Amino acid sequence: MGIGMSNAMRWPDGFIAVDWGTTNRRAYLLDADGRQGAEFEDGQGVLAVPAGGFPAAVAEIRARLGDKPLMMAGMIGSNRGWVEAPYVGCPAGIAELASALAWPAENVAIVPGVSFAEGHRADVMRGEEVQLLGALAAGLIPSDCLVCHPGTHNKWAALAGGRIVSFRTIMTGELFNLLSEHSILSDLLEGEAEAGEAFAAGVEAGLSGAGLPAELFAVRARVLLGQAPRGDAPSFTSGLLIGADVAIGLRDKSERDVIVMGRPELTRFYAAAIAQAGRQPIELDGERSFIAGCARIAELL
Amino acid sequence: MGIGMSNAMRWPDGFIAVDWGTTNRRAYLLDADGRQGAEFEDGQGVLAVPAGGFPAAVAEIRARLGDKPLMMAGMIGSNRGWVEAPYVGCPAGIAELASALAWPAENVAIVPGVSFAEGHRADVMRGEEVQLLGALAAGLIPSDCLVCHPGTHNKWAALAGGRIVSFRTIMTGELFNLLSEHSILSDLLEGEAEAGEAFAAGVEAGLSGAGLPAELFAVRARVLLGQAPRGDAPSFTSGLLIGADVAIGLRDKSERDVIVMGRPELTRFYAAAIAQAGRQPIELDGERSFIAGCARIAELL
Repeated sequence: MGIGMSNAMRWPDGFIAVDWGTTNRRAYLLDADGRQGAEFEDGQGVLAVPAGGFPAAVAEIRARLGDKPLMMAGMIGSNRGWVEAPYVGCPAGIAELASALAWPAENVAIVPGVSFAEGHRADVMRGEEVQLLGALAAGLIPSDCLVCHPGTHNKWAALAGGRIVSFRTIMTGELFNLLSEHSILSDLLEGEAEAGEAFAAGVEAGLSGAGLPAELFAVRARVLLGQAPRGDAPSFTSGLLIGADVAIGLRDKSERDVIVMGRPELTRFYAAAIAQAGRQPIELDGERSFIAGCARIAELL
Repeated sequence: MGIGMSNAMRWPDGFIAVDWGTTNRRAYLLDADGRQGAEFEDGQGVLAVPAGGFPAAVAEIRARLGDKPLMMAGMIGSNRGWVEAPYVGCPAGIAELASALAWPAENVAIVPGVSFAEGHRADVMRGEEVQLLGALAAGLIPSDCLVCHPGTHNKWAALAGGRIVSFRTIMTGELFNLLSEHSILSDLLEGEAEAGEAFAAGVEAGLSGAGLPAELFAVRARVLLGQAPRGDAPSFTSGLLIGADVAIGLRDKSERDVIVMGRPELTRFYAAAIAQAGRQPIELDGERSFIAGCARIAELL
């Protein structure tokens, strides 16, 4: 384990940036100026790596992309990952992240996650912080803004003065998966959701705050009573969950523009719901922001 | 299949009442005056009965309790049961149920479920209607009241003039099960919930309407950040879901007294949450009401 000296080094020959999540990892080769070269994505998320297997998993990344330093973020820094990189509390900017890297091996850095605690509110993120602050570093978003970051666990983050000042996680994606795979609605949720009329009706029900756990059962009842076609259920349910999510995310927020950052197949649903709530969504691909964030942290080493 | 004549008969030698659900069934031998004799409960819910297996499953009940007519309610009358007994729409009283029985075999009646549709609201119940209207027939509840009926799918039912006029189903029990068994919260939800301080804190968060899918993730974040003990998670989460449920159930309802009907191990949690919401819960065992409902329907044959 090489600690200490690493913290003052720079990486003139480039490095590999890794977004290492629970079920997937994405790795990008970057040159000294942050320009992207080769990349790959696979299913070797932290849960797929056996105990003690991270040095070998990292060696495999280097075998594919080159023998370079690594800058990693995401669940790799959690208690299920390689080493735990303690959370940095809000307000957190890119400098706070850079000064709190964990170094599980020489030339291998793990970016810490960010936490938020206020009264009885508590929240954590790992991985999204690099995208949020990377987008800022790349000039893609302003230093004061509201960002929605869809995923299994959607994050609503408020940035002020170039730092993450507060955020809230909403379990929308996970709830949809639970309902699709294990619930009384499973047989109705087999198809693909589409951002059309049934989705918009779901968003309306979700935004209204009428009550998510009641509206969910009504999805089934409406089909049983012939009030809605079966085929609408995936889109309506997706809209319902995302609408309830957006209602929480926009509560007490006055921003007209809302950045929606992530994978395009998710951001378009959230963008539609945010527009339906009367705000202006601005979609942004999270991958480019992740690379920009890692490059900026490497500059600060 | 004996249909027709059965509809005009009476059962002077008593009968067997069966509450036949998705995963369980309970059968009670009743004499001509509705007094209860032998009974049993087992795991032969409708999902455990193979296609075409209901005549044999009914023969087994008679072998255990006597060769008597049967009055059955619950999922046995659904599209996953023996024959589908079409829903009776609200407003539905005991007479409406009695006049819409399905008769899959001679001396075997299935009580229909009840449906509610208004605007885009839609809801269905199967089994609870016998308990609700049975409690009324037995003089256990007034003809105008608000009833909360906890279970996998909690029902909030409004009775007026002795009939069910509207109701709303909330997936609270199923959501708790999904979260316990398959979610990121699973490891935190292994213990038993208790109706103490952590439960009350959850109820408060649920009643506040702050946003269920956000509060759920906070359960994990609070433990990760050391803000709440792991052991509180089952009670807090149970309180959160039940609080959100009670907030929906009491919305636009002015009743001071709220009947809470069902199994005591569930009604006590709801009673605590309803009291916390400033109403007066009145707990009632659903089993006695079910028997009273079947007896009343048999009188109306």
